[in-house]
Amino acid sequence: MELEYDGLLFSGWQTQNNAPTIQDAVEKTLERILSRKVRICGSGRTDAGVHARAQIANFFTDSALSCDKILKALNSWLPEGISARKVAEGDSGFHSRYSAKFKHYRYIIYNGKTPPALQRNRVWFVPCPLEIKKMEKAAVCLLGRHDFSSFGVNPRRKVKNPVKTILCIKIKKSGPNIRFDVIGDGFLYKMVRSIIGTLVDVGRGKRKTDEIKKILSMKNRMNASPIAPPQGLYLHKVIY
Amino acid sequence: MELEYDGLLFSGWQTQNNAPTIQDAVEKTLERILSRKVRICGSGRTDAGVHARAQIANFFTDSALSCDKILKALNSWLPEGISARKVAEGDSGFHSRYSAKFKHYRYIIYNGKTPPALQRNRVWFVPCPLEIKKMEKAAVCLLGRHDFSSFGVNPRRKVKNPVKTILCIKIKKSGPNIRFDVIGDGFLYKMVRSIIGTLVDVGRGKRKTDEIKKILSMKNRMNASPIAPPQGLYLHKVIY
Repeated sequence: MELEYDGLLFSGWQTQNNAPTIQDAVEKTLERILSRKVRICGSGRTDAGVHARAQIANFFTDSALSCDKILKALNSWLPEGISARKVAEGDSGFHSRYSAKFKHYRYIIYNGKTPPALQRNRVWFVPCPLEIKKMEKAAVCLLGRHDFSSFGVNPRRKVKNPVKTILCIKIKKSGPNIRFDVIGDGFLYKMVRSIIGTLVDVGRGKRKTDEIKKILSMKNRMNASPIAPPQGLYLHKVIY
Repeated sequence: MELEYDGLLFSGWQTQNNAPTIQDAVEKTLERILSRKVRICGSGRTDAGVHARAQIANFFTDSALSCDKILKALNSWLPEGISARKVAEGDSGFHSRYSAKFKHYRYIIYNGKTPPALQRNRVWFVPCPLEIKKMEKAAVCLLGRHDFSSFGVNPRRKVKNPVKTILCIKIKKSGPNIRFDVIGDGFLYKMVRSIIGTLVDVGRGKRKTDEIKKILSMKNRMNASPIAPPQGLYLHKVIY
């Protein structure tokens, strides 16, 4: 399944007690469609407030319903703020998480002077001037294979493998919006938002471009900037 | 003042009893800033659910506060979903409504196959195929000066002057979105949504292109199609 959702209506992807999550909502809807308990497996969690343009999740079923029927039933019964874009049969070895090669996240900043009433839940409003060239230069330092401990928050448990590869950070200004496209083979907890927060500090002149290398080498989250808020972040695509 | 707002959070522009309106919210905020009652005058009403990218409203004040200070204070204190984009001093003869020469409305349809979770409050979701060329051809019949009684709903009182001039109806497809830009010297109650509803019926093949002329000539709202929903409509610009 390819799922689109508005992260602000849910307490994140993963099932938890006493809070509405996307996983719960989709599992309950599938249970209604397939008349039995269904457990879905997402390509990864998204935090509360983070959106998805195309989250991928798989489940197993012996139902005789066609994929098209399941798609239509999902879109009839899913709660507000979640929609199913595609349903297709996968290979038997397919696993939403383990088969994923790369993930593409998009982050959108609204860099106008006054707050964006109509986009308020879809962007981060940064009213101060941002120098795109400085941010681009800083982003280059993050490309490739690094230990990203400085950009990974993980309060509960130690990170197993903080070494990740970032393939691409593309920054594009279009009117008052600045779009960051970040593609990598894996991301630590809150890593994209931590990167964006730090790049914005470079763009506004609060940090120097070459500080990024130093931050990376220190392998400690305390050195990066505050994380960017969730409502500007989208899980844009999962590449298999 | 140039105001942007999310129409879904309010019961329309105009002050009414027991329902939150944009006019009320802006007047209360100005009262707080200027320490006295303020009455604002908008370029026109927008209905419940209809958004504005740039509604214009004026008020009179002898305050010593600069326009820039008022703008900042508005954006600090306006409720969620309303923002002020500009505040400037007008000529003494300026009147938001009477000085307006043209109004530019935009309507956005999401013409994808599955519901748009992230855009759900900003577009009308029309899943069936729409032929742009047919809609363009039909739209041409509406250009110029006509009696638009067939496209104006007015349950409470008779329309004073149903003759309006439409300068432009531009239809543009961009990905799954179809954008309608309608510019005219005035619009009857729910006229834009009534036009869009009828054009969509042409685009999906439910009505013929040349029916538009017949509908216009009948001068009766009962002949047009059901109106398009409010969440796809934006007061985009007021031209003085």
